[in-house]
Amino acid sequence: MDRDHRTVEQEYEHLKSRLAESGMDVDLDEAKERLKRQRLETPSWGYGDSGTRFYVFKKPGAARNVYEKLQDAAEVHRLTGVTPTVALHIPWDKVDDYTALKRYAEDLGVKIGAINPNLFQDDDYMLGSITHPDPGVRKKAVAHMLECVDIMRTVGSKTLSIWLADGTNYPGQGDFRDRKRWMTECLEEVYQSLDEDMKMLLEYKFFEPGFYHTDLADWGMATITAMKLGPKAKTLVDLGHHPLGTNIQHIVAFLIDEGRLGGFHFNSKKYADDDLTAGSNDPYELFLIFNELARAENEAGGRLDVDYMIDQSHNVKPKIPAMIQTVMNLQRAYAKALLVDRKALARAQQEGDIIGAERVLVDAFNLDVEPLLRMVRAELGVPLDPLKAFAESGYLERVIKERSR
Amino acid sequence: MDRDHRTVEQEYEHLKSRLAESGMDVDLDEAKERLKRQRLETPSWGYGDSGTRFYVFKKPGAARNVYEKLQDAAEVHRLTGVTPTVALHIPWDKVDDYTALKRYAEDLGVKIGAINPNLFQDDDYMLGSITHPDPGVRKKAVAHMLECVDIMRTVGSKTLSIWLADGTNYPGQGDFRDRKRWMTECLEEVYQSLDEDMKMLLEYKFFEPGFYHTDLADWGMATITAMKLGPKAKTLVDLGHHPLGTNIQHIVAFLIDEGRLGGFHFNSKKYADDDLTAGSNDPYELFLIFNELARAENEAGGRLDVDYMIDQSHNVKPKIPAMIQTVMNLQRAYAKALLVDRKALARAQQEGDIIGAERVLVDAFNLDVEPLLRMVRAELGVPLDPLKAFAESGYLERVIKERSR
Amino acid sequence: MDRDHRTVEQEYEHLKSRLAESGMDVDLDEAKERLKRQRLETPSWGYGDSGTRFYVFKKPGAARNVYEKLQDAAEVHRLTGVTPTVALHIPWDKVDDYTALKRYAEDLGVKIGAINPNLFQDDDYMLGSITHPDPGVRKKAVAHMLECVDIMRTVGSKTLSIWLADGTNYPGQGDFRDRKRWMTECLEEVYQSLDEDMKMLLEYKFFEPGFYHTDLADWGMATITAMKLGPKAKTLVDLGHHPLGTNIQHIVAFLIDEGRLGGFHFNSKKYADDDLTAGSNDPYELFLIFNELARAENEAGGRLDVDYMIDQSHNVKPKIPAMIQTVMNLQRAYAKALLVDRKALARAQQEGDIIGAERVLVDAFNLDVEPLLRMVRAELGVPLDPLKAFAESGYLERVIKERSR
Amino acid sequence: MDRDHRTVEQEYEHLKSRLAESGMDVDLDEAKERLKRQRLETPSWGYGDSGTRFYVFKKPGAARNVYEKLQDAAEVHRLTGVTPTVALHIPWDKVDDYTALKRYAEDLGVKIGAINPNLFQDDDYMLGSITHPDPGVRKKAVAHMLECVDIMRTVGSKTLSIWLADGTNYPGQGDFRDRKRWMTECLEEVYQSLDEDMKMLLEYKFFEPGFYHTDLADWGMATITAMKLGPKAKTLVDLGHHPLGTNIQHIVAFLIDEGRLGGFHFNSKKYADDDLTAGSNDPYELFLIFNELARAENEAGGRLDVDYMIDQSHNVKPKIPAMIQTVMNLQRAYAKALLVDRKALARAQQEGDIIGAERVLVDAFNLDVEPLLRMVRAELGVPLDPLKAFAESGYLERVIKERSR
Repeated sequence: MDRDHRTVEQEYEHLKSRLAESGMDVDLDEAKERLKRQRLETPSWGYGDSGTRFYVFKKPGAARNVYEKLQDAAEVHRLTGVTPTVALHIPWDKVDDYTALKRYAEDLGVKIGAINPNLFQDDDYMLGSITHPDPGVRKKAVAHMLECVDIMRTVGSKTLSIWLADGTNYPGQGDFRDRKRWMTECLEEVYQSLDEDMKMLLEYKFFEPGFYHTDLADWGMATITAMKLGPKAKTLVDLGHHPLGTNIQHIVAFLIDEGRLGGFHFNSKKYADDDLTAGSNDPYELFLIFNELARAENEAGGRLDVDYMIDQSHNVKPKIPAMIQTVMNLQRAYAKALLVDRKALARAQQEGDIIGAERVLVDAFNLDVEPLLRMVRAELGVPLDPLKAFAESGYLERVIKERSR
Repeated sequence: MDRDHRTVEQEYEHLKSRLAESGMDVDLDEAKERLKRQRLETPSWGYGDSGTRFYVFKKPGAARNVYEKLQDAAEVHRLTGVTPTVALHIPWDKVDDYTALKRYAEDLGVKIGAINPNLFQDDDYMLGSITHPDPGVRKKAVAHMLECVDIMRTVGSKTLSIWLADGTNYPGQGDFRDRKRWMTECLEEVYQSLDEDMKMLLEYKFFEPGFYHTDLADWGMATITAMKLGPKAKTLVDLGHHPLGTNIQHIVAFLIDEGRLGGFHFNSKKYADDDLTAGSNDPYELFLIFNELARAENEAGGRLDVDYMIDQSHNVKPKIPAMIQTVMNLQRAYAKALLVDRKALARAQQEGDIIGAERVLVDAFNLDVEPLLRMVRAELGVPLDPLKAFAESGYLERVIKERSR
Repeated sequence: MDRDHRTVEQEYEHLKSRLAESGMDVDLDEAKERLKRQRLETPSWGYGDSGTRFYVFKKPGAARNVYEKLQDAAEVHRLTGVTPTVALHIPWDKVDDYTALKRYAEDLGVKIGAINPNLFQDDDYMLGSITHPDPGVRKKAVAHMLECVDIMRTVGSKTLSIWLADGTNYPGQGDFRDRKRWMTECLEEVYQSLDEDMKMLLEYKFFEPGFYHTDLADWGMATITAMKLGPKAKTLVDLGHHPLGTNIQHIVAFLIDEGRLGGFHFNSKKYADDDLTAGSNDPYELFLIFNELARAENEAGGRLDVDYMIDQSHNVKPKIPAMIQTVMNLQRAYAKALLVDRKALARAQQEGDIIGAERVLVDAFNLDVEPLLRMVRAELGVPLDPLKAFAESGYLERVIKERSR
Repeated sequence: MDRDHRTVEQEYEHLKSRLAESGMDVDLDEAKERLKRQRLETPSWGYGDSGTRFYVFKKPGAARNVYEKLQDAAEVHRLTGVTPTVALHIPWDKVDDYTALKRYAEDLGVKIGAINPNLFQDDDYMLGSITHPDPGVRKKAVAHMLECVDIMRTVGSKTLSIWLADGTNYPGQGDFRDRKRWMTECLEEVYQSLDEDMKMLLEYKFFEPGFYHTDLADWGMATITAMKLGPKAKTLVDLGHHPLGTNIQHIVAFLIDEGRLGGFHFNSKKYADDDLTAGSNDPYELFLIFNELARAENEAGGRLDVDYMIDQSHNVKPKIPAMIQTVMNLQRAYAKALLVDRKALARAQQEGDIIGAERVLVDAFNLDVEPLLRMVRAELGVPLDPLKAFAESGYLERVIKERSR
């Protein structure tokens, strides 16, 4: 079943000729180069045990601390070649010496990415963090974010990624507008502390753990707040944080157009939230999101200033393979988006040819892009099938032994 | 079953003493005065036959043209005392002489309110109106809106209320960002034509008739567009136009705080859209929305610059009674919101007393405010039970005869 | 603010005359008697700490074991008079001597109600309990349920209340039909072990912790499975376990008509699940559910063989007050349902008078039934305001001291 | 861009070798044979103009009567080879001589499929058809269905496909249980009239045009009703008629297992209903549905007694191309489902290898099956690209001319 590199090339060439025959005006080699430059950030918390409110299933070998998490992240990067950075969560990943942590990561071949302050795991925050009626609690929350900015300076991170668990469960519990003003004031204080080359991402969430309202409930609230703060503040789109049916790709396009798309948390859901592997529920939707990104990249000379981060709550899949599978899903979606025949699409749109325009997208989506992805991996010098390579690597067996001590 | 005015007063006094005994710090007389000043606008199209895509059930006596619609609206105002204006839809309500139409309305005791341009009932608009790829179609749509502004000048209307049916049904059918730019350009042109004392309301809608995307899909898109246009542009909240579960009162509070709440389209839904009588599906939600409005009025000295308009698609209820019932539901929700003990609420919020805060709202909601509403009606000089009064008025029997000619 | 009993009677009489004047053909005294016979079951797990996947906020004085939970349940019954039974969860409430536990409860003035087997907090159940591909795991799950039936015999419980956390997170993870057959086989084995006067309730849940499918996803799957098992198997309706928009009262009516309504788990939700106090999100919906129950009771001579159980996941409200508040909400909903003028309703339905029929329900819902509920409490010999009575009782302060040892 | 048949064969062989290399244990030739036997039914009403409640866009050349609809259906069958039957809607397709109509269809190369009684386009049905409080209206509705059974005998149809628009818009409007009993009685009368080899399909719908409840709201209500009626009654799954998030493939599997899956109405939705081309919103979901069907066919020796019908409400796409595109989408989904490696899937499921099991499905879904589908078309003797063939056929131009007369 193993494919040698000659096969890889043959299949790549077959795909190229298949595209040529079909009349699609796309550049496979350019797609390949852009795929080689794709960068995805994995989250440290994606390597430790997690669960639902009902139970946390223990996974043998799951990382127990930030060092082990970085090891796992480095392994994913070694196998995929496109995940060179790791997001941290403070205080989950709190250490005494961040300079040493930075070096530890670099020795493993990865860097530290976004810093995520934790504003929800403290009894003080039951009624809110920066929306709490008690100014003392708000101050504590701001201080924690300022501490995170300090950590960013030490570890070389440029992204402060803020998700608020703030919200209420019952009508009357809090005053929407008081809370809004407190939140804005606190964010302004943190914003002022950012260095010139830092950015602040504001994540929104439709619900949970607030079951009546969340203070940043949708992209509109996050974006209007970011507009108040200034150009370094942008919106973070978590794929799981929308009402069912929401056209996420439309929001992405709107944010791009407004210059406010700051980053992604990739995951997927069928019902409620960020529960599943990105691309596992509706891969066509993921493709349509990347379709907007690829189009915008074309205009922007190939690159957007957007953080592509993975954030999903895996409960039953083994952690490292789930992360690798996610990376592969994101590569596949991007690959297909890069093979959309944009001239044909624009032409059909102009002519009002609805079926023709749809078919341009569907034709790209229906392509078997595995030959392209294998060529990308071959040129990146990573295994052609990273999942299989991981299974055969003995890594899991080794850490199970090491981490049970 | 008829209550004379002495009974009305007795029951009002009983409610007052009931409030006093319960320790609620609320001012019933002030609530009564504010209820007397409440103003609701009814829509001309609410008096004609309407239906679903499956069928339009014919209602005997339903208004057939704008004159009959104004008659019916005037009848609703005669019976309720709080609906002195009527929204028009152009070209549904197109006439040759708008000055005469204005006079016709005034002779009936009502005025013309918001003007709603129709940008969807024309084969030209299949792919969009101001988002259409063909500049000629966009121009036609702008011209129609400019015509509406002219009509506004003639009839004395101050509100241009814009709902776009623009959207797409299939991925690829249109380019989100091209359409966004065309839309913004066109709206700017219309905005420039507004007089100083006019405003433009932008309505958003989650879906339908666009079944893949709608160009103004949510309050965020409408509001950011309004912010681009200028201070005369505001957001219109149609209660039926949100994803299920949306905390509409939170959006209302956010818009108030941003100075961008322009108006409402009142209706209700259980599943999809604006299909039902306002307050008929979840009266507690309607109360919670009015709770935000009442709180904001307190801050603003008793009045907000907001257009309270009814817009619901009634298919099975008889038209005029349905409108009267709607008005009564909106009065009831507002009455209860005016009886929220705001000091107790603020205190419980400050103390983190979740159950106590909730109870303040629930206690107001659970009040039987019919005695208050009857006193309001008595002082306004309208029937105590407008629905019953309509049934007994012979109006319907008369118009059935007249309108079958 | 305290009302003495003379006031209670006066207000009750005022309500009676108010009903008479309004022409509503309802019997307040009968409603009072039925409210005195209302019985609600509280869950042992509702008295201990619980939370979301993000955090569990610690509540001072929260019950730490089944004995303390029974104490709290008994306190709720002492204050409300309508919660004489307590549901247990095994093994959360596992003890060595169930006879002693039964006696302990009875000494406190309560009895043990439904027994709920726990089939989800064990690493063995990651892929399912009675739907697990490994027959050994299925056998273990069945054995646990049989153990629960034994416990039922000892404690005198008649209801085995089954909720399966079984489901999958990803397409392909399990075979729907294999799992269905295993589940049915296992349930049959448990069903056979039930005594003649025992019943088995099957709960369904739209999603979570299964995020792709749950094996009993809706009332249809639960009910068709119950029909296969036999007459002792019925369906349990948990108010939080439906897709948004679902007309739960319609399902309740359908189940009543089929003789398969076995019980309720009362709670409420705005977005996802059983997260909130029953009646707190949409009290009109709760009223409409009780409206179906009240109508069916009328036909059945006043009583249905249905278990009315509370099951909600409170994270921020203090536990005992939240339970008391829930009981009060359920009393209020039932009270209003008992005051629906059924003759007027039937007449309006027969005549196709939609507004009239709706108004019959709305008139009952809008009644201020607090005077009725206070009279019920007075006659039951419990405090007129159980929440206030609890706050003043010193109970919480006492258990905080005792339970911190 | 045209592919000759030698290319078709080469690409088919390449796919076969690609499958072999990848180690997938699937039989391409068998898949091809089963695809050649796939049968889809198109609906007569899919060829005429339709729209939303806002507007019906006129399509040039749209069929104006049943004869023209049959012509268009025959054209679709000529181009695809898999749509030999046409569903009729009575009275939309009412004619004087059904024997002549049958012959007319057969002369065109198609047959008449399911007969759909229309129970909603009549003022009498405003409050319901077979759930109407007036027995006279119920009788009229039953008579119409009996007439349809007579038509079935004449035209040789074996399927009576029943969708009820019955429902209510407001609480109280109707009594759920009275309506349920009337509905069941009426259906029983129709059921008794069926010939031995006829079947009755019961369609369910979450909402619309009933906006408070629909009498057959979900598969559970339809199926329990069918179980009461007898073995000839089965459930029809319309893909658009579920709450958002519903796992439709799970319902399909459950119905197969119960022997109650009667048929499909294929379409797609993003938000509300049956508004879109099947497979256009979430093609992975369509694949997962066919995955259940393909698995069940394997057990049943290759064929299920299920009616595969298309029913979608196209408003903006040209009618005939939209139908052809639908057929192609359904072929693609089935093709991919036939290429699932079932042994590998079962193995991974048994081993609890979640990622492995998912990957088996994803690998099949990600295949480019166009070479397989072209070979199927080649062997069926129809154009390789039916959409292109239609565009080049001159058919539309011809009927535009003919039908404008």
